This record gives sequence, C-alpha cells and structure tokens, in this order.
Amino acid sequence: MILQSIINIAEICSQKGISEAILSPGSRCAPLTLAFVRHPKINTRTIGDERSAGFIGLGLALKSKTPTVLVCTSGSAAYNYAPAVAEAYFQQIPMVIFTADRPPEWIDQLDGQTIRQQQIYGRHVKKSYELPVDQEHPDAQWHVNRIVNEAINESKSFPPGPVHINAPFREPFYPSTDEAFKFDQDIRIFEEESCTAKLSESQIELFSKKLGNKRILILAGQDTLNIKLLEHLNEFSQKHHVPVIGDVISNCHSADNIIQHQDAFLAVRSNDFRKNLSPDILITFGKSVISKQLKIFLRELDIDEHWHLQIAGEVADTFQQLTKIIRVAPEVFFQEIKSKSSGNEASHTYLMHWKQSNETAGKTFSETFFNQEFSEFEAVKELMSTLPSNSDLHLANSMPVRYANYVGLKDKSIEVYANRGTSGIDGSNSTALGTALGTKRITTLITGDMAFFYDRNAFWNNYIPANLRIVILNNHGGGIFGLIKGPSQQPELAEYFETEQPLFAESLSKEYGLDYYHCKTRGELISYLPSFFKMGTKAKILEIETDKNINKRIFATFKSNIQKTYGV
Amino acid sequence: MILQSIINIAEICSQKGISEAILSPGSRCAPLTLAFVRHPKINTRTIGDERSAGFIGLGLALKSKTPTVLVCTSGSAAYNYAPAVAEAYFQQIPMVIFTADRPPEWIDQLDGQTIRQQQIYGRHVKKSYELPVDQEHPDAQWHVNRIVNEAINESKSFPPGPVHINAPFREPFYPSTDEAFKFDQDIRIFEEESCTAKLSESQIELFSKKLGNKRILILAGQDTLNIKLLEHLNEFSQKHHVPVIGDVISNCHSADNIIQHQDAFLAVRSNDFRKNLSPDILITFGKSVISKQLKIFLRELDIDEHWHLQIAGEVADTFQQLTKIIRVAPEVFFQEIKSKSSGNEASHTYLMHWKQSNETAGKTFSETFFNQEFSEFEAVKELMSTLPSNSDLHLANSMPVRYANYVGLKDKSIEVYANRGTSGIDGSNSTALGTALGTKRITTLITGDMAFFYDRNAFWNNYIPANLRIVILNNHGGGIFGLIKGPSQQPELAEYFETEQPLFAESLSKEYGLDYYHCKTRGELISYLPSFFKMGTKAKILEIETDKNINKRIFATFKSNIQKTYGV
Repeated sequence: MILQSIINIAEICSQKGISEAILSPGSRCAPLTLAFVRHPKINTRTIGDERSAGFIGLGLALKSKTPTVLVCTSGSAAYNYAPAVAEAYFQQIPMVIFTADRPPEWIDQLDGQTIRQQQIYGRHVKKSYELPVDQEHPDAQWHVNRIVNEAINESKSFPPGPVHINAPFREPFYPSTDEAFKFDQDIRIFEEESCTAKLSESQIELFSKKLGNKRILILAGQDTLNIKLLEHLNEFSQKHHVPVIGDVISNCHSADNIIQHQDAFLAVRSNDFRKNLSPDILITFGKSVISKQLKIFLRELDIDEHWHLQIAGEVADTFQQLTKIIRVAPEVFFQEIKSKSSGNEASHTYLMHWKQSNETAGKTFSETFFNQEFSEFEAVKELMSTLPSNSDLHLANSMPVRYANYVGLKDKSIEVYANRGTSGIDGSNSTALGTALGTKRITTLITGDMAFFYDRNAFWNNYIPANLRIVILNNHGGGIFGLIKGPSQQPELAEYFETEQPLFAESLSKEYGLDYYHCKTRGELISYLPSFFKMGTKAKILEIETDKNINKRIFATFKSNIQKTYGV
Repeated sequence: MILQSIINIAEICSQKGISEAILSPGSRCAPLTLAFVRHPKINTRTIGDERSAGFIGLGLALKSKTPTVLVCTSGSAAYNYAPAVAEAYFQQIPMVIFTADRPPEWIDQLDGQTIRQQQIYGRHVKKSYELPVDQEHPDAQWHVNRIVNEAINESKSFPPGPVHINAPFREPFYPSTDEAFKFDQDIRIFEEESCTAKLSESQIELFSKKLGNKRILILAGQDTLNIKLLEHLNEFSQKHHVPVIGDVISNCHSADNIIQHQDAFLAVRSNDFRKNLSPDILITFGKSVISKQLKIFLRELDIDEHWHLQIAGEVADTFQQLTKIIRVAPEVFFQEIKSKSSGNEASHTYLMHWKQSNETAGKTFSETFFNQEFSEFEAVKELMSTLPSNSDLHLANSMPVRYANYVGLKDKSIEVYANRGTSGIDGSNSTALGTALGTKRITTLITGDMAFFYDRNAFWNNYIPANLRIVILNNHGGGIFGLIKGPSQQPELAEYFETEQPLFAESLSKEYGLDYYHCKTRGELISYLPSFFKMGTKAKILEIETDKNINKRIFATFKSNIQKTYGV
C-alpha cells in the first residue's frame, strides 16, 4: 500500500503551480514516480542518466521560472544530480529535488544503493528536508504536508533556488493491482505571498541628490529577460545620460545606451581612455558578469560609490568597490528615481565616451575577419546576427559564451541563457534541451566540442524536441587553453590542457536520429543557416569544424586590432 | 611562479607509493597538473569527463590497492567526482582527491567556476583537508607537507577510503618559461605502520570453547582476493566441517566447502529444509552480500551468536543478529582458532546439508536452459565458464551481478570486482577500464545496456586498453524491473521503470575504434567467445541481444525449477 501522504505530494506540487517532473528509474522511488506519473496535471518524463536529468530539469525551470521536480532512487543517483543542483543554486533557479532513501535504520548496514543522503548537497541547496518514514501518527502526516509546502515556498522565494527532500521508504514500493490511487483535492496548501519593497520618500530624496550631476555607470549582471526593468531602465538612462553595460547574458541587449563590446575595448590600458570612462557612481544589479576586462577595469577604478540593487540574499563584492546594498528590485529603483534627478552636460559627454568606444570596437570584427581564413570567432559573429527572431539562445561555457559576449546581440526578441552559476561545461546540452522542452521557440545552443561530448547523454532519452538546434564549434579539444598565455607556453598543452579529442558529432547524430550539418567554410555556414534554423520534425546539429591554430591567430589579430584602433 | 610546496606534493605522493594520477583539464589546477605530469615516477592520464575520471581512478586503485590521485579544476568538476567518491568510500578503496579552488576571499563573489568546495563530499570521504593559500610562512609550508602526508596515511589506514584535499590557488597558475621546476627529493615523509592484531591466549581459549560441538556457518562478504585468508579458512573449514558461503564478489570461490548457489536454493521456504541449514554460530567477514534470499534466511534464524571479524571501522548489522565484533583480520582468526577445536558428527551432517543443497541447485541451470530459447541468464552462465584463466572479471550492477551470483565461479585464477559500495550503475565501464589499465590480464566487464550507455563517456579518452573486454546484455531497457513483481504489474512499466532505450553499441564501437561482436543466439555466442577473449591490439565489445520477455520467462522457469527440485 502506498501511503496517502506520499501520493498527495504530487497534488501539493500541482496546486502550488508545479507542472513538470523529471524522473529517473528506480524501485525505491516508485511511490513518488507513480504519484507524479499518475497526476493528471503534471507532465513527466523519464531520463536514465541522472546527471543529464538534473540539467534537463534545470532547463525547464529556467524557461518556466517555476520549480521543476526531480525524482531519483536511492544511492549514487542522488550524487549525479549534484552538478545541476550547484548550477541551480548559483544561477538561482527553483527546483524541488526528491531523493528516495532507505529508512534510517538501514543506513550503513551494507544494503545495496545506500549512501548518506541527508544533507547530501551541502551548501548548494537553500534547504534540505527529511520526510518521516513512519506516517501513522497524524502529526507525521502533517509533517509531510508541511515539509512539501515549505520546501516549494522556499524554492520560489527570492532568491529562488533548489531545495532537497530526502524521502525514506519502506517496502512495499508498488501498489497492489486492486489498490486505489487517489489524490486528495482538498489537501492543505499554504502559500507564501511576496510583497514589493519600495524606496521611502527620504531614500528617494537622498539617492536622487547623490546621483545629481554625477557620472553614473550602470552594469547589468546575468538575468532572464525583464521587460518591465528595461522600460524603467531606458527612461532613467536616457534622462541621466547613463551608459548601461550589459554582457550578453544580462538580457539587456535591447536597452537604450547599451554597451556590449566592453570586454574588447576595456583591454586598452591608456590612462586617458580609461579616465574618460570612469564613473563617480556605479549601479549594478543581477548576477554574474563575464567580461574579464570589465572586472579588471572596475576593480582598478577610484570611484565614490558602488550601489548594488537586490531585494534579498547574499551580495557579492565582485569589483571590490561595494558601498551600498539597496534592498529593492532594480525596476522599482529606476522607476522611483528617474523623475527626481537628471543628467547634465558632463554626464552627456561621459555617455558619448562609452558609446563611441563601443561603436569603434564593434567595427573591429569585420576588419578582423575580412580576407582571413574562417575561424570559430567569425562563425559565432555570423550566428549571432542570423539567429531567428523570437528564439532562445543558450551559450555553453568556455569560449562560446566569451565569443558571443564580444560580439553582442541586437534582436530584442531573443532571450539568452548560459550556465554561469558554476560556469561548468558539464550540462550544456541537457540544459538547452530542457528549455527547448518548455517552449515552441527555436532554441539554439552554441557549444564547443568538449562541452558537447561531455554531456552527450543529454540525447539518451525519448524526448528530444524538434525545436532544438545545436551548433558545435569543433576544434577537437579545449581550444581555450591555446588562446591564453600560461598553458600555451607549456609543453603539456595538447595532452593535458587542450585534451585533444578526435570525435565528430555525425555518428552521434545518426545514433539519435538528429539532422546533421557539417561545415568548414564561411560559405557553407552561410548557405546552411536558413535550412538549419527552419522549423522541422527533428532536432538539428550543425558542426562547424575549425583549425585551432587559425582560431588562435584570428583571436590574436582581433585583440591587436582593438589596441590599434584606439591608437595603442 | 609555482610554489615549491605545491610542486613537492607530487614528490610526497610518489615517495609514499602513489604511482597513478588521473587528471582532468583546467587552468586553476595547472600547478598540480604540472607537478604530477612532470614527476618522473608518476603515470598521468587526462580524462575530460570528471565523472568517468573518478571511476577510472577508482578502478586503478582497486587493482593496485594503492591510492590513486585525482586532480580537477574548481567548480562543478569536483561534484562530477562525487559518485566515484561515494563508491570508493563504501567499497573502501584508497584515493586522494585534489580539487583546485579559488582562494577563500573569492568564494561567493560571482567569479566563474566557483562553488562551495570545502567538505563537498560530506560524509563520503574519510577526511577533508584545506590547503593554506598563503605559504610564505614556514609554518604554512609545514602545514602543506603535513596535510599531504596525513591525507595519504588516512586514505591507506584500515578501512581504506577516499580523502579530499581542497587546494585554493592564486594566479599565476603556470610557471614562466625560464622558471625552474624541481622536486625536492629530501622532502619530509611520515609513514604510518600498521600492526597486526592477534587474539590473546584467553580469547583463543574462549572462542575455541564456544565453537566446539557447534554447527558453524561462515559467510564471506565482498573483498578482493586474499590467498592467505583462503589457506587458513580452508584448514579451519575442513577441520570443523564448516560450510563457507561466498557470493561471487567475495573472491572465495576457490575455498573448500564453498557454497555459491545460496541465492537460488534459500528461496525454498520449507521449514525442515531451512532447519537443517540453520547454524548455531554465524561467523562473517568482508563487506556486502548480494544474495537477497541469504539475507532473508539469516534474518529469520534463531541463532545463538553472530561474530563479525573486522580489524577496525564501523560494522554493519546486516542480518540483525550481531552479538560480537572481533577486532582481528579473518586470516589471523582462522589461523589461531583452527588448531584449538574440531568438528564432530553433527557438524559433518550439517556441512553435508549445505553441500547437497548447493549441488542440487547447481544442476538446475542446465535443466532450465535445455531446449529453451536463448536468454541473458544462459549467456552469463556460458560466460562464467568460458572466462580465460588469470583474468579479471567486473560485474555491473542490476542483473549482471545477480545472474553471475546465481551461477558462481570455479576458476581460482579469476578475480572478481563489482561496484557494490553504492551498487550504482553509473561508473561500471570506467571502473573496469581503470583496472584494465593497471594490469596486463584480460579484464572482462559483464554489463547491461542501461549501465553501459549511462557510462559511455568511459571511452572518451586516449587510453582505452587492449586487454579490456565488455559484454553487454542488451535487452533495451532496465530488464530488472520486468523480473520483479511490483513494477511489472504497473502500466507504467515500460516507460518509467524499464526506461526502454533503442541503442546498440555498434555505433559507439566504431566511433572509438573498438572491435565489435554482436550475437543473438547461443550458437553465435559460443563460436565468438574464443576470438573475443583472445589478446589483441584493441579493446573488444560483445553485445548479446536478447528479448526481455524471454529473459523473464527463463528466469521464472529457473525459480520454479528450484522449488520443484526441492519438492515444493
């Protein structure tokens, strides 16, 4: 007999807005598996490799901004979720992770598939819960209900993130054939209502006064697309002449006054140049920043203040300049401040410096690629301007996200995702596949060969969505190591850093029935893209094969062109 | 400049007997990577997927009984080791895991590849250490040396297991081209000498007296092959007429009085039958036991005493009968007790009951398979008797290890391995590949299709050894679920429990340049085996395709034949 409290877990999840559960096979977890599969309002999919399952769940949650449920059996299965759990924690993505477990008295008794699952994700979940194994007493049933309610609330409350519910089960794990399996519709639900923090009149007064006549720089960290924020940000930045630096993962590429090529032109070390770009006050919001040169630039500045806008949670001092944390959403801040102060001549000049630098850097690309051999950098440039409107873009870690960040994006209907929580290469395919499952939009992943093959089990399931597009920059190894000075000077470069690997994606594409394109030239790339991006019945892979030495040369040319352009 | 204390880590490892390091690519870990790669006495290999790297390292340590070093970069890389770390912990395999990290002041500051790595493996390592990031002070240098010495000692001391050294690094990570890179040969080493515990005269007297005239049953849990133990065990068991139950993972299959088919015949519920097999005293040693029927049998017994022999560490009460833990190695126990007491008529009869039951069960196989369609159970039976002498056998979890345990093994020159620490399917290929790297013997893995494809990244490296043989029992899903009553009665069986999957290993074999055999009949299997097991220049894969419904029928026939044989 399956305990009613366990069956009801699916009902609580559903009533609290969860509609997706990613399950992995196992017997110990069968009570939860059956509860989710049989619930009429929850979509379930089963994924054999829990590492991939974790990232697919993460992708779904990323797209829907609603917690995804994960369910796995006892033992090392739980640990295979860990990379995705850490990514969800730092990228602040809501997930509710159920791990089935032996009852406590059977832990460490040499039973199969038994590890120490309590608190297994350490400090990479917002909270970890343990369901009671004995549920005869009414208080125990209340406990189960309360844990599930609390866990989902915790997962959703700002900053959102993963929560873990360890669920010990005694046999039987399966209902007998004549057993009823019913969800209690009138189960108790308790919701957490979030309320919007506002600035007080005196705060508005004070902040506006401080901002008056100052050179202000806004920097947007990683976040999902927020139309309301863009609206208020635009009004503010226009009125105050404020440059808005937005890495490609900030989803602010359509903001007025957007600066996108900072990682290129901030490599210029000229003092005058940098002085002209130096703000009095830096205002930031969002999560991580990719541009290394931007980080260096900001850390070296002598600025008056750095304000960070974030409604709750830990705040990073990424630029070693933090002076004030303002506990308000950025859209609220800009809405309330915008009418109270305004820019002047000096701030206008300041904005122009940034805009001109940005424009100049933007012109360096064509110059770099013109009359040169085809490289992966050029391929990314081409892709970024050819992506279909109203599509989603995933950028894998290591070089793809960096190239894309140099290039920037124009089309405001494109939303950008990247696993910059932990910046691992481990789950890129699965994450992109997960978000593609949650939308009808074309979902394109740009990835490298190492990240692609690392996560090849992303395709080992029966749910590969037809709207998924994967572009692989295949240079047969971790090309990033050849592009940086330290490793490229070591004799161990090829074997121990680049980790040369010979694979192509054609075999994999056949195995999983995916459409496959291969190209080595810019001509092929340009001619394939319209067909590649066309909606079809199958997911498609486009493998762009490049030579790592050419990639290295073109990247160096680009960097030197930047310096030349600014007369250095 | 790379700190001398860091370079010396490789020297300490080498002087303390470590000769194998498995590295994964990254910049943060470069100081350690270079130290190990450049050390003249340490073999290094680089593996792109850390999950696989962890299990390959585990396989090497399993074979050599010496710690393997793992080195990965910062971030989620560390978490991808976790499944292998948990397996090593519960299987008691020594490993020293280095995870490079940001310096402490940069944790949680939104830098790339930064997670909370301290204590990341929780209670699945024997101990976790943190290297000092600042090493100017001589005490800090002493600290680094001491941590590495202590960690290796801890990893090797009984029961052996994994230890974790988190290693924060500041830039630079690479030596400049003119920088010396030398190992200090006279680095301080401190060893831990283990001493052999013996029984006192009074203990020998007491235990011998207790054992006199008693029906004794010996049960060997999982362990590696121990020739000395077998010798003393044989003398004891012969003299006292003691049956020795050894699952296939106990490596006691060549013991006199060995009982191997217990999981088959102990399913017989007849009271008389079970009474004849019931001991007065149960003596156990080693780790886990596979046979489910054996566990049930022992838990239901009314016995006087259960003694467990283990020199140190936590002891499990697997059969709920434990009365005495004796802190001595089993070989010492049997050596010291054997001459002091002896068996009698009753114990002789007792031994005969076990031997006859075992023999009778052994005859059931041929009867089950005769005139029947070819099944995976029969394939395993055929394989177990055809394995080359002086070879190693790995058994993957789920059905392969269970089938093999029903069948048992005769050839005493074969050593058996299985990841029964956590009993996961996640790293079987990689573990077998790791042990194959550490020997010239033919190393055969028998696995299922789910375990095989789960760990397909085991082959994504440049070190696949020619002595590796993989036999895949491909029934296109988790066949185990169809063999047990609970899930096979659920309408969700195929999608959510068996997780049907369509792949064959041919495509993968081509991709990685492995020899590939495919068979569907017993005739093909028998004709392929000589060539398959022959030493060659490439690793070989033999895929045995069977029908899960036939597998289910044959397995049911076997179980019913067992009952019939014993007149039930």
